Amino acid sequence: MRMYDIIIKKRNGEELTKEEIQYFVKGYTEGSIPDYQAAALLMSIYFKGMNKKETAELTIAMVNSGDAVDLSEINGIKVDKHSTGGVGDKISLIVVPLVASLGIPVAKMSGRGLGHTGGTIDKLEAIDGFKTEYTKDEFINNVNKYKMAISGQSGNLVPADKKLYALRDVTATIDSIPLIASSVMSKKIASGADCIVLDVKVGSGAFMKSVEEAVELAETMVEIGKSLKRRTVAIVTDMNQPLGHEVGNSNEIIEAIDVLKGKGSEDETEVALTIAAYMAILGGAYEEFEEAYSALREIIESGKAIDKLKHLIKIQGGDPEIVDNTDRLPRAKYHIEVKSEYEGFITSINAENIGISAMLLGAGRKTKEDKIDFSAGISLKKKVGDRTAIGETLCILHTNLGDTAEAEQIAQCAYNIGNIQKKIDRYVYRIIQ
Amino acid sequence: MRMYDIIIKKRNGEELTKEEIQYFVKGYTEGSIPDYQAAALLMSIYFKGMNKKETAELTIAMVNSGDAVDLSEINGIKVDKHSTGGVGDKISLIVVPLVASLGIPVAKMSGRGLGHTGGTIDKLEAIDGFKTEYTKDEFINNVNKYKMAISGQSGNLVPADKKLYALRDVTATIDSIPLIASSVMSKKIASGADCIVLDVKVGSGAFMKSVEEAVELAETMVEIGKSLKRRTVAIVTDMNQPLGHEVGNSNEIIEAIDVLKGKGSEDETEVALTIAAYMAILGGAYEEFEEAYSALREIIESGKAIDKLKHLIKIQGGDPEIVDNTDRLPRAKYHIEVKSEYEGFITSINAENIGISAMLLGAGRKTKEDKIDFSAGISLKKKVGDRTAIGETLCILHTNLGDTAEAEQIAQCAYNIGNIQKKIDRYVYRIIQ
Repeated sequence: MRMYDIIIKKRNGEELTKEEIQYFVKGYTEGSIPDYQAAALLMSIYFKGMNKKETAELTIAMVNSGDAVDLSEINGIKVDKHSTGGVGDKISLIVVPLVASLGIPVAKMSGRGLGHTGGTIDKLEAIDGFKTEYTKDEFINNVNKYKMAISGQSGNLVPADKKLYALRDVTATIDSIPLIASSVMSKKIASGADCIVLDVKVGSGAFMKSVEEAVELAETMVEIGKSLKRRTVAIVTDMNQPLGHEVGNSNEIIEAIDVLKGKGSEDETEVALTIAAYMAILGGAYEEFEEAYSALREIIESGKAIDKLKHLIKIQGGDPEIVDNTDRLPRAKYHIEVKSEYEGFITSINAENIGISAMLLGAGRKTKEDKIDFSAGISLKKKVGDRTAIGETLCILHTNLGDTAEAEQIAQCAYNIGNIQKKIDRYVYRIIQ
Repeated sequence: MRMYDIIIKKRNGEELTKEEIQYFVKGYTEGSIPDYQAAALLMSIYFKGMNKKETAELTIAMVNSGDAVDLSEINGIKVDKHSTGGVGDKISLIVVPLVASLGIPVAKMSGRGLGHTGGTIDKLEAIDGFKTEYTKDEFINNVNKYKMAISGQSGNLVPADKKLYALRDVTATIDSIPLIASSVMSKKIASGADCIVLDVKVGSGAFMKSVEEAVELAETMVEIGKSLKRRTVAIVTDMNQPLGHEVGNSNEIIEAIDVLKGKGSEDETEVALTIAAYMAILGGAYEEFEEAYSALREIIESGKAIDKLKHLIKIQGGDPEIVDNTDRLPRAKYHIEVKSEYEGFITSINAENIGISAMLLGAGRKTKEDKIDFSAGISLKKKVGDRTAIGETLCILHTNLGDTAEAEQIAQCAYNIGNIQKKIDRYVYRIIQ
């Protein structure tokens, strides 16, 4: 088998065989296939696509490139959750205690942030003492004992994806549906989940700009799940502005607490409850969506949900008092108000730019080596549909840095202001299962 | 400027600016742009193409990547000739003395063969003593004195093309019209030609399989020539079988001599005279094609053409006696007849396979380092349209090697035999100017 022939086959729009896909993934991971040939194949896949069978084979080959996590020692159905990447996305912080309250084991492996996106593990580390590094046994024990645990990814999980993603990132081949779908699904499957709920973001701040594209990606991932015998539901949710009002670390923890106390914003609450409801269904607690949704709402209202979060923080070594006294979380020195230069309605908020601005304030990492300032971030005071006058505050930047000119300018420009009021009345567009 | 943005622009089907094309060619030649990004751009160009303006800019950027040859010291209009690559293509050996006979200066820079294709410089070295390495001054002096000189390419001519071609070769991006066109034209322009006659091959043995594709390539190259102020004519000629009857080195020299003596095969003679006629027109000797064509035929019949070849051989240090006594050329020890296993008509002869067979016999190079056996090669006894019985000789393999099983089998399989007689009655399909 020759990589050249595999490139030419895909370039000509033909279907690759299982063996060809395995040959490519194995060879590229091991280094026997050079970057330039992989780049040529990726660009051919960008143009010619992959059918369901090829995409599933690519996913399997990627899973097999490294070590898979064996969670079979955890009793019950393990439900995992994944988001295709958003700004202000603190859904994982909310759904882990929420779903665990139903007695469903939630073994959540999460990542760190890079560039304009944040990571759940970083956000949790804003809580003093919160431990995110566990051995496999500790992690499994916690889930069996408490029905929940959150841990950073460890070990040699899907090395093919790490290498391919890095190459896609510099060759303009990120936004290819089969490549995104196999990247996401390989990681979820290697992490040992039985069932998967996917949060597919759509809008100006997401890879997928239109609902049609997002549905196509969602369908592709659900198909992969099915063919690999993992029940999968994909939920297409709005990312035409950051989710909720807080972007950062400390401030996102506070917002997650608010949702679990029943005081969250409408968008954050609806998306979180919808995802948690499908996790509950896949986990076998309920059959109907309405039933699951009301039960979860009841869990919030009864105070059980917030107690579960306190418990989670305690188990993992953090200070549970922060739940009742959020002032204990890191707080920034400076709070800069970004004011509107126009009068009108907020028509959209570029989530990526808000993410970049937050990163510049210290809340994120430009490179993997950067250290995060947990107190830094942005509070959005205006969201899409809101009216603003000249001089009104659009958002507040929290930082410990003296020079914030660039961050201010980027945040300012992230707000699009027009004459016609556009209300976002739906946060969940489609359910694919 | 970032290479990433250039890739994404072309991937999205947009036109690249002059500055972007220059940035890519310069950066890739110098090594600041990595292979994988170049591969991604090449594949995007394969899918999205380049318009005339972009293709011309790419050509100029490639010319500027190295040193251009300055032939301004040669008196008169310098006409160059280029073939897109064929098997058994000894046209350069014929047209150089032929056109020089008209007093037009022919400063021919030629290449060596690799893989299934032969090279003019290799073929000439079959003549004992023939010198193909000249300094620029010697080369120019010869042209001014004798109106003709053939030399191997020297110096740092279009290094961007060398690097890009090597990358295209391993990333399945060879057969892209703007990439082929800019590669050919950059070399011709850097070689200092005022006018260019292009022999664009079409058929089973060429990159371009259909006349439409070949015309598109021809038009693209003529357009580049025009926009860079080089008068250019492209001639689309048949490559559904090797040109003439001889494929190799010594034996191709003999066939070229035959054409110049007026005893050449019909296809070889027609293609050579057509190309020479357009060279004569671009060189200012004639205005009308018919006129030029008859004049060249007359030059052959009068014996002037063959005398000119003798003179060329003498000037360049070779033994001119080989023209009258071809036995003086290297001759192989073994001559193996490949016999037909079927009865019927030859419907096509896969030129690439004949080229590979000849290479295996010693006539070509598998790698750049291989040495050529000038006496090795293939004589085609049957050509398209000929009838054959079982056991009749299709071709004869000339070699000094003992084991020829693979070469025999490949030559055997290169012949396609069917029931319906297909006559190739045209060797020149189209003229683009």
